[in-house]
Amino acid sequence: MKTYLDCFPCFLSQALRAARIATDDEKKIKQVLDEVGMMLRDIPLESTPPESGRLIYRKVSEITGVPDPYKEIKAESTRKALALYPSLKRLVQESENCLLTAARVAIAGNVIDFGGNWNFDLEAEIGEILKNDFAVCDFHAFRKSVNEAGEILYIGDNAGECVFDRILIEEIGKPVLYVVRGAPIINDAIYDDAVAAGIDKVAAILPSGTDGPGTILETCSPQFMEVYNRAECIISKGQGNYEALSSENRPIFFLLKTKCPVIADDLGVGEGSIILKQGDASHEDS
Amino acid sequence: MKTYLDCFPCFLSQALRAARIATDDEKKIKQVLDEVGMMLRDIPLESTPPESGRLIYRKVSEITGVPDPYKEIKAESTRKALALYPSLKRLVQESENCLLTAARVAIAGNVIDFGGNWNFDLEAEIGEILKNDFAVCDFHAFRKSVNEAGEILYIGDNAGECVFDRILIEEIGKPVLYVVRGAPIINDAIYDDAVAAGIDKVAAILPSGTDGPGTILETCSPQFMEVYNRAECIISKGQGNYEALSSENRPIFFLLKTKCPVIADDLGVGEGSIILKQGDASHEDS
Repeated sequence: MKTYLDCFPCFLSQALRAARIATDDEKKIKQVLDEVGMMLRDIPLESTPPESGRLIYRKVSEITGVPDPYKEIKAESTRKALALYPSLKRLVQESENCLLTAARVAIAGNVIDFGGNWNFDLEAEIGEILKNDFAVCDFHAFRKSVNEAGEILYIGDNAGECVFDRILIEEIGKPVLYVVRGAPIINDAIYDDAVAAGIDKVAAILPSGTDGPGTILETCSPQFMEVYNRAECIISKGQGNYEALSSENRPIFFLLKTKCPVIADDLGVGEGSIILKQGDASHEDS
Repeated sequence: MKTYLDCFPCFLSQALRAARIATDDEKKIKQVLDEVGMMLRDIPLESTPPESGRLIYRKVSEITGVPDPYKEIKAESTRKALALYPSLKRLVQESENCLLTAARVAIAGNVIDFGGNWNFDLEAEIGEILKNDFAVCDFHAFRKSVNEAGEILYIGDNAGECVFDRILIEEIGKPVLYVVRGAPIINDAIYDDAVAAGIDKVAAILPSGTDGPGTILETCSPQFMEVYNRAECIISKGQGNYEALSSENRPIFFLLKTKCPVIADDLGVGEGSIILKQGDASHEDS
């Protein structure tokens, strides 16, 4: 997905929020705003938002001296999500269409997000997502692809959300390679966050190598690229991965909640929509 | 009022909105974002927001080549407000406390604003403001000051809102000098907007000389400053004038709706509050 004009004020808001989480020093926070303001002219509309987000959040860490401002928030998200695990697990097991309900649960977990949108009531949001209609639902193709693939490449998004992904992975019941970011960025899941969520019990965990808030392929490791290029079925969670991968010609299914108006517009849906979308490029194969 | 950290992303959002109103050319709009981003580091927290707003909106006009992007919007606001004039006038005349109701009406007009906040339903908002409680209401001091002053200096804010100000001016029934901006800025009222609202029938109109979205005294004309410095009672409408004048040691009454969280915090009230506040400095005299 390209960068839209509306992304620019949002970049500055995100920098401000991250800087405030990292420090109380108003001078340093002002310096973050100054320097991120200066960076905007070097962001082309042709780049994807995570490419810029990567540089902006790095700048926040550089100025504040805090490499992982969201560390505590991530741990707390995981704790809260784990507390919900038994009831969500039961919900899936008791449902008529277990795979669809598990996909809903995984999307519900995507409300945990401290990037562009960060005001959320986890349990209320989950209740909404579990009962609301999908705005895009390519479930038939999704089930077919999952059933036919020997292994699933599952690209995770945020810490805490991993717990919800685990429920979908358990329901898929096939070998899954679960991808996390290569370095801390916002509240995105890294290796330790996936382990804390118990992903290691149900899947192999592979860092993509990127230090951006999305799977920016140019910054991923050769190991990840090799797996990515041969994957038969890819599940991509969340907005950042959608922004980074929406133009890719691979068999990808995007599972997310649209939490920002720009992404909602890009998908042609309303804000707050629930999406299970087959990547445009993968339609040919289904 | 000082500039708060939250003002910086808002400056960029405002620049984007104004640029879009001025032009459809995405390249020019991007150039606005680039150049406004570069300006942020030169904005000290000690300045008032209208001082920066002045430079930012000037930059938008410079890049887009449109000196008054809100001209049509202003004319439309005045037309809509004039259509409401008879019913609002009747409401004041039939109320128990005509001056207080007229002050409420004048504050209701302050919802017309295309600066920081611009999503409003005029008639619905007016209905709310006419029935809601004031968060700050120094009405007793306001009435005393208005009654004792020989002449009132009334500093207007937005086009359209002038029509509502006219109702308060008519209720005051004393000589009023109505102040407008010296040059177009956002949808703020200039001379022609006040005349279109019929202010010329009830008051003398004086441009302050400023080309900023608030009464930035350093940029006002000597004529205005002379009147301002000897005024016995000053009515200041809206957020921009509050931001510019809140630290002033003059007998000012601020009439506004808090439409932004930063100003609401500065006043110690909630967002969307209705304010009739005696300037801190003027308490001594009352």
